Amino acid sequence: MTKKILLAYSGGLDTSFCVVHLKAQGWEVHAALVNTGGCDSSEYPAIESRAKALGAASFTVLEETENYYQEVVKFLLFGNVLKGDTYPLSVSAERNHQANALVQYAKTLGVQAIAHGSTGAGNDQVRFDMVFQTQAPELEIITPIRDMQLSREAEIAFLQEHGVEMSFEKSKYSINKGLWGTSVGGAETLTSHQNLPDSAYPTPCTQQGCETLKIQFDQGEPVAVNGVAMAPVACIEKINALAGSYAIGRDIHVGDTIIGIKGRVGFEAPAAVVLIKAHQLLEKHCLSKWQQHWKKQLAEWYGMFLHEALFQEPVMRNIEGFLQDTQNQVTGTVEVQLHPYRFEMVGVTSENDLMQADFGAYGEMNKAWTGEDVKGFTKIYGNAISVMQSINQRRP
Amino acid sequence: MTKKILLAYSGGLDTSFCVVHLKAQGWEVHAALVNTGGCDSSEYPAIESRAKALGAASFTVLEETENYYQEVVKFLLFGNVLKGDTYPLSVSAERNHQANALVQYAKTLGVQAIAHGSTGAGNDQVRFDMVFQTQAPELEIITPIRDMQLSREAEIAFLQEHGVEMSFEKSKYSINKGLWGTSVGGAETLTSHQNLPDSAYPTPCTQQGCETLKIQFDQGEPVAVNGVAMAPVACIEKINALAGSYAIGRDIHVGDTIIGIKGRVGFEAPAAVVLIKAHQLLEKHCLSKWQQHWKKQLAEWYGMFLHEALFQEPVMRNIEGFLQDTQNQVTGTVEVQLHPYRFEMVGVTSENDLMQADFGAYGEMNKAWTGEDVKGFTKIYGNAISVMQSINQRRP
Amino acid sequence: MTKKILLAYSGGLDTSFCVVHLKAQGWEVHAALVNTGGCDSSEYPAIESRAKALGAASFTVLEETENYYQEVVKFLLFGNVLKGDTYPLSVSAERNHQANALVQYAKTLGVQAIAHGSTGAGNDQVRFDMVFQTQAPELEIITPIRDMQLSREAEIAFLQEHGVEMSFEKSKYSINKGLWGTSVGGAETLTSHQNLPDSAYPTPCTQQGCETLKIQFDQGEPVAVNGVAMAPVACIEKINALAGSYAIGRDIHVGDTIIGIKGRVGFEAPAAVVLIKAHQLLEKHCLSKWQQHWKKQLAEWYGMFLHEALFQEPVMRNIEGFLQDTQNQVTGTVEVQLHPYRFEMVGVTSENDLMQADFGAYGEMNKAWTGEDVKGFTKIYGNAISVMQSINQRRP
Amino acid sequence: MTKKILLAYSGGLDTSFCVVHLKAQGWEVHAALVNTGGCDSSEYPAIESRAKALGAASFTVLEETENYYQEVVKFLLFGNVLKGDTYPLSVSAERNHQANALVQYAKTLGVQAIAHGSTGAGNDQVRFDMVFQTQAPELEIITPIRDMQLSREAEIAFLQEHGVEMSFEKSKYSINKGLWGTSVGGAETLTSHQNLPDSAYPTPCTQQGCETLKIQFDQGEPVAVNGVAMAPVACIEKINALAGSYAIGRDIHVGDTIIGIKGRVGFEAPAAVVLIKAHQLLEKHCLSKWQQHWKKQLAEWYGMFLHEALFQEPVMRNIEGFLQDTQNQVTGTVEVQLHPYRFEMVGVTSENDLMQADFGAYGEMNKAWTGEDVKGFTKIYGNAISVMQSINQRRP
Repeated sequence: MTKKILLAYSGGLDTSFCVVHLKAQGWEVHAALVNTGGCDSSEYPAIESRAKALGAASFTVLEETENYYQEVVKFLLFGNVLKGDTYPLSVSAERNHQANALVQYAKTLGVQAIAHGSTGAGNDQVRFDMVFQTQAPELEIITPIRDMQLSREAEIAFLQEHGVEMSFEKSKYSINKGLWGTSVGGAETLTSHQNLPDSAYPTPCTQQGCETLKIQFDQGEPVAVNGVAMAPVACIEKINALAGSYAIGRDIHVGDTIIGIKGRVGFEAPAAVVLIKAHQLLEKHCLSKWQQHWKKQLAEWYGMFLHEALFQEPVMRNIEGFLQDTQNQVTGTVEVQLHPYRFEMVGVTSENDLMQADFGAYGEMNKAWTGEDVKGFTKIYGNAISVMQSINQRRP
Repeated sequence: MTKKILLAYSGGLDTSFCVVHLKAQGWEVHAALVNTGGCDSSEYPAIESRAKALGAASFTVLEETENYYQEVVKFLLFGNVLKGDTYPLSVSAERNHQANALVQYAKTLGVQAIAHGSTGAGNDQVRFDMVFQTQAPELEIITPIRDMQLSREAEIAFLQEHGVEMSFEKSKYSINKGLWGTSVGGAETLTSHQNLPDSAYPTPCTQQGCETLKIQFDQGEPVAVNGVAMAPVACIEKINALAGSYAIGRDIHVGDTIIGIKGRVGFEAPAAVVLIKAHQLLEKHCLSKWQQHWKKQLAEWYGMFLHEALFQEPVMRNIEGFLQDTQNQVTGTVEVQLHPYRFEMVGVTSENDLMQADFGAYGEMNKAWTGEDVKGFTKIYGNAISVMQSINQRRP
Repeated sequence: MTKKILLAYSGGLDTSFCVVHLKAQGWEVHAALVNTGGCDSSEYPAIESRAKALGAASFTVLEETENYYQEVVKFLLFGNVLKGDTYPLSVSAERNHQANALVQYAKTLGVQAIAHGSTGAGNDQVRFDMVFQTQAPELEIITPIRDMQLSREAEIAFLQEHGVEMSFEKSKYSINKGLWGTSVGGAETLTSHQNLPDSAYPTPCTQQGCETLKIQFDQGEPVAVNGVAMAPVACIEKINALAGSYAIGRDIHVGDTIIGIKGRVGFEAPAAVVLIKAHQLLEKHCLSKWQQHWKKQLAEWYGMFLHEALFQEPVMRNIEGFLQDTQNQVTGTVEVQLHPYRFEMVGVTSENDLMQADFGAYGEMNKAWTGEDVKGFTKIYGNAISVMQSINQRRP
Repeated sequence: MTKKILLAYSGGLDTSFCVVHLKAQGWEVHAALVNTGGCDSSEYPAIESRAKALGAASFTVLEETENYYQEVVKFLLFGNVLKGDTYPLSVSAERNHQANALVQYAKTLGVQAIAHGSTGAGNDQVRFDMVFQTQAPELEIITPIRDMQLSREAEIAFLQEHGVEMSFEKSKYSINKGLWGTSVGGAETLTSHQNLPDSAYPTPCTQQGCETLKIQFDQGEPVAVNGVAMAPVACIEKINALAGSYAIGRDIHVGDTIIGIKGRVGFEAPAAVVLIKAHQLLEKHCLSKWQQHWKKQLAEWYGMFLHEALFQEPVMRNIEGFLQDTQNQVTGTVEVQLHPYRFEMVGVTSENDLMQADFGAYGEMNKAWTGEDVKGFTKIYGNAISVMQSINQRRP
């Protein structure tokens, strides 16, 4: 009986090689593409044709954008997660979710193995393996690209030997698109001293001047853009289009890979960056100092574990609960101004705004307490330090 | 015998009122201005004349910029401290230092009391009081503005009654300049929904196009700008001039005051913001993941305590030691590109750069380990989660 | 019309003085005793008689033990909260809850003011004031003991002048009993170098030998003792009786008061200490490493804020949610051995125990992975350090 | 030319097997025993004879107790490190240090490889490998026990085949002795529900009644026991003898191994446990609340990384600096009472004690502030919560 394998298939050279290689090894290869917001459905027929032409027994698109938002992206927004204070985890977030979707599909298909095309140098191999081995320990994991370490030329030669004559464009940059941002790797990002040229980013700046963007949040989630109500995923897509046309949300992430080495990758993530900054500003007005403090601690950890393939650690569910729990006051509208290559916060309007003129305005004459209250406060506030000073001064 | 008092004197209406009021109360008033990088020495003669005309027995400028850098600013840079991910603590940092300098000077003068002109609504009163009461518990603290809560008109009337006819310009915004940035409060910042107009910021954008800025760091401190070696304070001043002319480093800080209410204040801090982002990027290349993690935790705390008048807590000295200790590898040059209203990081060059092509480049064929190593790693890395899954699946 | 005031009344000298003093000031005094597990109902009639004899218009006991468990104690157990690694917050926890119960009752009564008998030196005054002023800002807070600072003798003289001839025993120690422990202050605890004598503790050791105690937890809450199912509060009372007879759970807490000075207080808290250690052991078996890590961080904060009268900070609700969320696996039975003055953990039995012989036993031959896996793991695990070493060795 | 290998040799069956096995593989085997405080020098000759008889080319004892204290133990004490609130890391701490000492010795010897006898199931293999591979990447690491997975019987048979007839006693428990404690594994610790019997612990309780122990600390380090000055290592040995005779410091550690599974191990660590509790008490009196808070965070991390073979992470050096820096006030004497199987803290005497009767005693009439000060303090302290309440009440 033929053994069946599910292959995470993108249509590129590496995973195309995998189809042919795995089939040559005797597998019945089922190819699947997981869409987490970065795929253009008009390309599906071409990808499917290619997969079939390479010998895949089936090809499927798993439409996961909404699930991806509900299970991951939402919490990244609640947590204002920007790794290294800049990167919204565009790739890490979706890779984990894709692996999950693949495992579920693999169980439906009844395969004996599951394959991905990651190399042995990066984070993605670990993300796929971690989900596969823990969620479906009964499945064999096969990774031809990591195992064989073939050059691009050798892969093409192998395909030709097996009668496949396809053209695989060699692009200067490796691009990965998704709902929460697009990564851009290669060339300049391989060393430390250069940034990416404008042309490396898929979305060009097509705007001049500036424009106002109003984002309405309900309990932490975006629910309307410029006054038009829409679902969160639609809000993200809308803001990606608007802010993307100003080339907003670009930078280079420098950080530690799971593998222990430093890596550098460019990204453009207009919606993620604008939404996080807007959401964070709304929180500054609606949450207490200590809610913000602890959210930050937990969210940074959440981002780190997601990045490092530990999404399944049970503490992640507890952190998600905490983040969700903090959002019930985070309702209001944030106004943002978009300019070419940058944006600025204008302000917020919220029923829950804790900065109220009628309690005691900052810098103005105070109403809810007196100068004497503050003197008493400061006296007691300084007691611990005063005790220390008195001890220190007593010493010779 | 006449009792002597030291007054923190700025030359504005409030502290001018204090001179006359305190003298009327029988004090011999000694006025002092502390320069932490924001004063223009050409204005000293005018301020001195005014103080003397109001009846001050003496007037002194305490030149504290270098000390301020060595005792506070340096650690804010080491810690990449941006409160609420944006505000470099421009005012909080210098207020504490000014209070310290005043206390030292008060001891030299041999006064019986010390006075400041803060109101009862903000953070500054607490910052001054905390230093005064703990560093010099023997001195009486007198705060006429907080205690009397007079309107601007009442203050002017009082001065006129005492024969003082001076003009005090009423500006729309309250501006506070210092080495590490300038705060801009008033009008729009008193509510939540508007940002400051361009004209509110003291330093206008006078540049078009873009320009490259190279900052050289030695063990975390800036030591050269565009290849010209200079002391850290000179570097900061130079970058303030360069990046300031692009209107870089502006934003509005929203946060909790010591007093417990939310406040909002604008700022422009070109050097602080550019230096912190450049320094942080260099650290991403030169420090380990966990050094960055713990630096961040401690530095955030450091910023919070500094902001909240707890600079004297002994843990602050321990944190400074930690931050200093992490900097011995933070040496190298960072290239930044300045544009009107924004800047971007180009990259770093450092002998200590941990991202090395000769160890195992990210995303490329790996050299220092094999795919089998990663498989073993991932197997073990997932053990804890696998155990959990096996328990969970066992249950009915 | 007579104004009404609610007084937190304990029956001791200070609050008895308050009844007479407040009445003399023209108040209609309503006395209330809040029971959070430390009151003996047989004493209620005597306390009521005294209150009435002193002139109280009414006397009520608010039975709050169950609410206290549900709203506070439960979370202290989930969090294994031991301040300074020893003190289960016996007093802080109940004081806050009492204040809450009093405020609710005050609203029912329709009083204009609320009074407590705390001095100006400790934590309790702040705990009462914080709840009163924020939960019922419309009520005046009156604190005769703090304001008048009378000596014990002066208070008795005042009572006699007002015709009250009661005997108030002067005990060497100040004792405060509650469900979660009993505090013992005075004499030795006022300085640093002595511990409390055996006789200072209310519950004497009456046992010799040892005995086994089995505690069953369901989702973190105690649900049975020695095989007998009972409600959590009953479990706590039962364990207090059992472990108390062995004089277990005694120590002295040394810590910072809200007021900024160091304080020292003895306590006996048999149930709290035994339950926390048993619960923590069960968690070591049932929770992941990182769940334990983050629980600890958040729970330590929870304990600190509770201790420091910040129970109402909204982050406390978020932390409670987190702690609750981690407990769904914390089900099982813990066996403890009680000895005079100490106890030891025997072990746990739980369906959710993650230490399973059938996965890969610690220290024994491994089953779920190979030595080669560990070699690969260790290779990758050490990569970041190896990169550092290679950089360091390259330098002259 | 014969290749040389250094073998970490204990004299037990596993490492004796390694000597013969490695020699049979053609290696010139150099055996070394690292003493980190747990070896009895009277046993050295017998161990040396055995090593030589098995065919070792040389045998050396590396006396590392003092270095071990200076480089590791000291910081565990400064940090009051008790993993899972109980285990002083007796084994983890020394294993890392032993690996370090072996690597240094290997470089002196000029070997081509280094070997240890750890199995593939525990933490020790990772600890040895991590140090070896990062400190001496040029050395091959050979681990026969992990690789061959032979049973005890198979090892003995192999030795007999190679002409070795030695008796290796099979003990019920695996014991590891060191300066900072002794671990006891096996039998009951392999499952979750039993504790170790009294007889499993190497040091029996030989005392009745109780005795006072006075420990003097100077800047965090023990410098005298019961009034007799001695070096820190001697203090530890003295306290191990004294408290050990009361069977103090026993418990079972339950935690996560580096390998990801839960493990359980008994220990007796009289000096470590008594010293840590005494040191912590002294800190409660001499350090500020926030120094203690941050020490705890960093020390817990330090302990975790040491346990998990990450001692070489550069952040560990930064944490050591922080911990050292906090100790300059930690000077004074702590009195402890020893009883069979338990101890209690009596109190501390220190010039730096921040609990001073002359500033404002806890629970007594306050001197350094007034009731009005506290009222003002509490008013401001509650502002943030009051603002929240006012917002919440405003809502329908």
